[in-house]
Amino acid sequence: MNFELGNKFEECFVLSNEVYNGFIVVFKDKNPLHTNNQFAVNKGFKNKIMHGNILNGFLSYFIGECLPTKDVIIHSQEIQFKNAVYLNDELQFNAEIIGIYDSVNAIEFTYSFKNKEELIVAKGKIQIGLLK
Amino acid sequence: MNFELGNKFEECFVLSNEVYNGFIVVFKDKNPLHTNNQFAVNKGFKNKIMHGNILNGFLSYFIGECLPTKDVIIHSQEIQFKNAVYLNDELQFNAEIIGIYDSVNAIEFTYSFKNKEELIVAKGKIQIGLLK
Repeated sequence: MNFELGNKFEECFVLSNEVYNGFIVVFKDKNPLHTNNQFAVNKGFKNKIMHGNILNGFLSYFIGECLPTKDVIIHSQEIQFKNAVYLNDELQFNAEIIGIYDSVNAIEFTYSFKNKEELIVAKGKIQIGLLK
Repeated sequence: MNFELGNKFEECFVLSNEVYNGFIVVFKDKNPLHTNNQFAVNKGFKNKIMHGNILNGFLSYFIGECLPTKDVIIHSQEIQFKNAVYLNDELQFNAEIIGIYDSVNAIEFTYSFKNKEELIVAKGKIQIGLLK
């Protein structure tokens, strides 16, 4: 087992133009909150806000590419969106192992994304399975 | 209010090459389970399997583009992955409103994605807020 309870991980993710535009090209979500600055300002935001599911794409990278083994598969995820993310925001990602379930080969993480102002923009849990 | 308890929604999503390759270009998750057929076969799958977070991108499109109003924002999501999704799978998406919370302007959905064999590949819940 490459994992221990309390193991911590961190990454930095940038919500670049490439990621933002790429997400729209792939998934076609052009809701005005994400594409129209004036619409978003009228709703009380500083500017158009980024799609929350871009953060779920970053979680895919974290699980698929940043762990000490590639033999993993996601079982379940949850995410709560707490504050808006804007274009070019740099997000600090932190995760910690809060459960190791040997009998079912599963590992549970909590995680959060924070912006430069140290505000949590999203947080949640992920459970993964270890593949044999 | 454009929504009522029990309202049902359905969409069809295709896990095309464009979506699969686009997701990898945007999020850089090249875990061998998603990119190497032989690796995935050795782990017991029919072929390389698609990233679960591609389905979360489809959820973004559903909430952002398929509801009777565009004045929405996602509060939270959860997803459980139940069966593998393969390249070119056509997924039937069904959602239903299971909660309307007027005092906080929030609506809760359950949803599932099924493949052509009628197997549920993923299911979960989404809560959205209605923007004023």
